[in-house]
Amino acid sequence: MSGKRVAIIGAGVAGLVSIKSCFEEGLEPVCFERHNDIGGIWYYTEQLRKGQAAATYDSVVTNHSKEMSCFSDFPFPKEWPPFLSRLRVHEYLHSYADHFALKKYIKFNADVMKIEANSDGGWSVTISNGAGGKTEEVFDYVMVCTGVFSKPHFPSYPGLETFDGIKMHSNEYRDSSKFKDKRVVVVGAASTAGEVACELARNGSIQVFLSMRNGTVVIPRIGVQCTPWDLLCSRSIVNRDRILDKIAKWRIQDRTKIGLQCSEPIVNIKSLMVNDDIQDRIVQGKLEPVVGIEKFGKNSVTLVKGRILDDIGAVVFATGYQITFQFLKDTWVFDESDNLQLYKLVCPIGVDEPDRMALIGMFAPGGAAFPAFELQARWAVNVFVKRVKLPSKEQMRACIQKKPKYGRFYRSISTLPYQEELAEEIGANPSFWKTLMYDPRLAMACWYGPQVPYTYRLQGPRTWDGAREAIFSVWENTTCPTNSYRSTHMK
Amino acid sequence: MSGKRVAIIGAGVAGLVSIKSCFEEGLEPVCFERHNDIGGIWYYTEQLRKGQAAATYDSVVTNHSKEMSCFSDFPFPKEWPPFLSRLRVHEYLHSYADHFALKKYIKFNADVMKIEANSDGGWSVTISNGAGGKTEEVFDYVMVCTGVFSKPHFPSYPGLETFDGIKMHSNEYRDSSKFKDKRVVVVGAASTAGEVACELARNGSIQVFLSMRNGTVVIPRIGVQCTPWDLLCSRSIVNRDRILDKIAKWRIQDRTKIGLQCSEPIVNIKSLMVNDDIQDRIVQGKLEPVVGIEKFGKNSVTLVKGRILDDIGAVVFATGYQITFQFLKDTWVFDESDNLQLYKLVCPIGVDEPDRMALIGMFAPGGAAFPAFELQARWAVNVFVKRVKLPSKEQMRACIQKKPKYGRFYRSISTLPYQEELAEEIGANPSFWKTLMYDPRLAMACWYGPQVPYTYRLQGPRTWDGAREAIFSVWENTTCPTNSYRSTHMK
Repeated sequence: MSGKRVAIIGAGVAGLVSIKSCFEEGLEPVCFERHNDIGGIWYYTEQLRKGQAAATYDSVVTNHSKEMSCFSDFPFPKEWPPFLSRLRVHEYLHSYADHFALKKYIKFNADVMKIEANSDGGWSVTISNGAGGKTEEVFDYVMVCTGVFSKPHFPSYPGLETFDGIKMHSNEYRDSSKFKDKRVVVVGAASTAGEVACELARNGSIQVFLSMRNGTVVIPRIGVQCTPWDLLCSRSIVNRDRILDKIAKWRIQDRTKIGLQCSEPIVNIKSLMVNDDIQDRIVQGKLEPVVGIEKFGKNSVTLVKGRILDDIGAVVFATGYQITFQFLKDTWVFDESDNLQLYKLVCPIGVDEPDRMALIGMFAPGGAAFPAFELQARWAVNVFVKRVKLPSKEQMRACIQKKPKYGRFYRSISTLPYQEELAEEIGANPSFWKTLMYDPRLAMACWYGPQVPYTYRLQGPRTWDGAREAIFSVWENTTCPTNSYRSTHMK
Repeated sequence: MSGKRVAIIGAGVAGLVSIKSCFEEGLEPVCFERHNDIGGIWYYTEQLRKGQAAATYDSVVTNHSKEMSCFSDFPFPKEWPPFLSRLRVHEYLHSYADHFALKKYIKFNADVMKIEANSDGGWSVTISNGAGGKTEEVFDYVMVCTGVFSKPHFPSYPGLETFDGIKMHSNEYRDSSKFKDKRVVVVGAASTAGEVACELARNGSIQVFLSMRNGTVVIPRIGVQCTPWDLLCSRSIVNRDRILDKIAKWRIQDRTKIGLQCSEPIVNIKSLMVNDDIQDRIVQGKLEPVVGIEKFGKNSVTLVKGRILDDIGAVVFATGYQITFQFLKDTWVFDESDNLQLYKLVCPIGVDEPDRMALIGMFAPGGAAFPAFELQARWAVNVFVKRVKLPSKEQMRACIQKKPKYGRFYRSISTLPYQEELAEEIGANPSFWKTLMYDPRLAMACWYGPQVPYTYRLQGPRTWDGAREAIFSVWENTTCPTNSYRSTHMK
């Protein structure tokens, strides 16, 4: 090891890949996790833990298929189905941490209170042990892996304080049990809103209204071929929106027929809704999409065009999260207009030495999170060890200016082009022409096949011997868990 | 009234249309219902009632769309969604009974014990009041409306008696609560098996195995157009199997990919599975289709090709029902090989005067039940009043011989051609050429549009003034409840 120490805040998905990326490059990671287990949002407990902002519900299932959403050198077990329950994801994170011996770098129940820049260029990190004890440690680098889900976002509405029923953010939603025999309004247009609304509609709520200001676009996990939608995403695709539009029509040709009118073309939609069930809930009558909310009454909700929903017993706000930091200076990360100023969405240009701090996962992945966070961590560590040199602050600022701005409310980023951009900088993006020379089949798979994470382990730093085989096993690994009936049991 | 009295056994769907058909033709119906409410299988109680054999689960939804499955002169409310919950169906049956003043003909808590043929051609019916009291009444005609769901069918397996977990027929299944944290085997390949398996897979069972001897064919309720599948069924269709095959591919192009291999071509499949969810449950891993069962152990299930499913905590048999009668002589209804001998699936040729007894709904409707039972009742009453003359017993027997046989285990009948056959005999099947002369638009709708029940109220006995308008409102009534968002709330 170089003796250079890296403080990693949080042992969720971003934290784990950061630990691994650090020690792979000879840095010494120390990960502070405020809870008592790894996994972050995938560490499920029935109640919110102290200080926990984001949480999933019990029945959550991955939105992206296992071959597109694994870490680049650690495939999900072959026998697991294409889409995974929270239990399986958490098990996977544990086996990843065990396989690469990451846990020894993690301090649990360690809550980072403050990060201060030292005059010599390093960082002082103050950690609370939760029992009143505080320690301060000095580090050369910091990786902030606490994610965008740091504060539940509640839109404000007139009269909400007078509403008498259950008011719940989706971070407290675990299952449908509290909503039996109630008429419920779910607010939101993204995946969580859809899944919660469908689950309530299936499980004993009298009626569920899904309130969306601009409708939504629904992406089913599989199409008629019963293969995951995201396996259509290859490097060769020029127009990603056209593909997404095509996938959205796999199950719903015309959203207006079932009240999911979306006034925007798909390219402008802020968040997609991954959902398999909503069209069926709607035609079975228990779920009704409605427009945005104007105001609340004691037990009613008035919609923007005047319709009043009576006898409402609960409202679930699946309205996302806001970015806040308890331990960072806001000026490091936000500009004066409260817009994030992160070069490559990673390095904060508000600090004196942006090449000594990285924020991993500070965006909503419009694609699988694990491989995107992993490439951020690999890129950041390459910045730390100066293999990748940051441009001047002015150049970085100009670069950030050119991209769409976003502030406290995180923005969805299309992960696949973003991954290519980061991988290119560290030399891990496979070169089509170069690969074609020595392994034409592999070149075709990388270019025309699904843009799987393994493709970032073929060249550049820290390649993985299993990558080539993993790339060729994508389809087999996807279909074998579900077609076993035929192959092993039927004639 | 003619003074002729008809005993109607059961006040479910078949019983209600029988009452109405009787008094429309001047007969005096007396309906004996052993429970305290109308609706039969749609009268839901948490526990099986005394003497009740068939029941639905809490979350049951109609398999056919509302415009295809209503009574011919009583559409479902326009604002109701295309597919209906059990609560809505039961409400509809009550409003049907109220609208046509049927309830005054019903004696509740009246259990028919015995029906005997009188020497003068009528019937003696013995009724128990459930409290030990018995009465005997004499009737001119009898309509048996107790349905095919008279005795739960359990397949027999070696070792089943030693199995230690929950053994439940689907008639006792209400919801998933008893199956939390268990590995469950659901046996069956038809709609109930699929819905129960999916509900368990969604709601807390650890793993669900769906055991099917020959796989199945899955029909989704809606396709990408978000309109109900059954609205594709028109009189002009020659090859119904081809249409069904096409609909089956709406969501699952190749069943083998998700383990739903079916070794038979669709035309030979005994029962279809109407299900929207099964492909998604399978790719999310909680539901696995497996082959048939060979034997049971204490807490294991051995499949026919030797695979052993361990740690099984419950088995649900969604294996259907058998036909039995507590009040009829078997020889009236079954031949010596225990095959049903019902002319037109209605009149039992084993009685001396088959034109004085009718069995309504003695088959599994491969299509919507309500309109099929209604035409049976209308046809039967026309037989009673001699407007339709039965052929000789020999002719009737020959006619039955020509059709596929079925015995105690009911058979699925394709309802649409069957309805045309019955309607033809009473003059209620619309004539294309005749209609074309005076109302070409109506003729086209009857022939090329969905074969909706209203089309049987255009001509023949007991026409309905609203039929024409109802036929032209089918699409509007189907889509308006779900596209209201756009039309009433969005710009």
